[in-house]
Amino acid sequence: MGEAENPRIHPLADVKSDQIGEGTNIWQFVVIFEGAKIGADCNICAHVLVESDVVIGDRVTVKSGVQLWDGLRVDEDVFIGPNATFANDIFPRSKNHENALLVTRVYRGASIGAGAVILPGVEIGPYSMIGAGSVVTRSVPANAVVVGNPARIIGNVSGRVRSNVDGTPT
Amino acid sequence: MGEAENPRIHPLADVKSDQIGEGTNIWQFVVIFEGAKIGADCNICAHVLVESDVVIGDRVTVKSGVQLWDGLRVDEDVFIGPNATFANDIFPRSKNHENALLVTRVYRGASIGAGAVILPGVEIGPYSMIGAGSVVTRSVPANAVVVGNPARIIGNVSGRVRSNVDGTPT
Amino acid sequence: MGEAENPRIHPLADVKSDQIGEGTNIWQFVVIFEGAKIGADCNICAHVLVESDVVIGDRVTVKSGVQLWDGLRVDEDVFIGPNATFANDIFPRSKNHENALLVTRVYRGASIGAGAVILPGVEIGPYSMIGAGSVVTRSVPANAVVVGNPARIIGNVSGRVRSNVDGTPT
Repeated sequence: MGEAENPRIHPLADVKSDQIGEGTNIWQFVVIFEGAKIGADCNICAHVLVESDVVIGDRVTVKSGVQLWDGLRVDEDVFIGPNATFANDIFPRSKNHENALLVTRVYRGASIGAGAVILPGVEIGPYSMIGAGSVVTRSVPANAVVVGNPARIIGNVSGRVRSNVDGTPT
Repeated sequence: MGEAENPRIHPLADVKSDQIGEGTNIWQFVVIFEGAKIGADCNICAHVLVESDVVIGDRVTVKSGVQLWDGLRVDEDVFIGPNATFANDIFPRSKNHENALLVTRVYRGASIGAGAVILPGVEIGPYSMIGAGSVVTRSVPANAVVVGNPARIIGNVSGRVRSNVDGTPT
Repeated sequence: MGEAENPRIHPLADVKSDQIGEGTNIWQFVVIFEGAKIGADCNICAHVLVESDVVIGDRVTVKSGVQLWDGLRVDEDVFIGPNATFANDIFPRSKNHENALLVTRVYRGASIGAGAVILPGVEIGPYSMIGAGSVVTRSVPANAVVVGNPARIIGNVSGRVRSNVDGTPT
């Protein structure tokens, strides 16, 4: 395996977790809390933050400006675009810690577009595609393509092939 | 009082202000300009920036990826969600400093959801709740719940209890 | 010219490019890759990232929380607001490098509002103004003012004077 297979952590990152898989890159000004679990061959870009109660699978890409809060579960092969934003409290108030934090799950192979906002507690189905700038207020089925605020289904995607809702090619 | 009550400033933050209240936490890669006033028992999360002409009350939470620009006034007990975005110039042009910068005020107890965008010069009323991903183009009354782009009132909130516009419980 | 005219690079930035013009400021926790070309008298604010295959003209302002990805071309006198988000892959999948990355061009004097999202491959016309929180899914003509998700034209702007679509002053 050799040293090159270890996670590569940039010296300007602040990483407290020791549960980061082989071949994963952690870039500048990233913050990772103790206890966070990150798989192998991931790419965690500059200016990302990962809290403690977060689990990330293998081969996940997290672009810059994203925070993964406690309660997030991200399966393998997920893409999270730049400045995409998660939340874990449906009714946030400063210094209020009474609410149970909601679990948000992003299933295998899903892609979340640039600047999309994901409400707490939703599930992002496998291989679904969340359009850039969408606001996702409810769970997204497998292979669905959603866009808009609030996000609505506009088509489906099968692996790397897309179709309209009626099955015609885009 | 003791040392533990002083603001806790992470060594990876760049803080030039000396007007930060007791018990406030300032986290990694935060930038705070000289002259900024921040109250007691606040939580200023990683990757936040606060300019000079900003006043923040006590017990305010500012999540990651937020910038507070000159002219912002944030009252006590406000929650500002991750990647929420403010602006202070209604007609921005690069290197144009002719426009008077507009004052944006966030009143006591208000909550601004993840990824919301607040146009310059609006007032966010006390205890109002700005939905995640909203774009707020006009002032929000006290206790209102707003969502969408542009944000519209969909209900009211009284402290920790919400109701629909007609007063029925949600 | 003297030393004061050189680019001013904050010691907390991570800058690998040596092609940065005179009088340009680079602020805290900025990341700039080797090969990036940045003009003179620019202001690159805290928490910005610039990849290698990016060209930025003179007198450009890039506010905090913005990433400029490979393929971006930004002309002179452009303003890019805080947390505005670009993308360069129309169909992103983690670890998929098959797609040709699309070129996005922002023409001279354009302004992109706070938190706006720009889809890959669009052109932002000269002196156009992208409203805060807009999601730009198609190219924007010169001097147009666009807002919304998806962004639509609501007026025109001539230099620093705005008009409605029918030419009446706003």
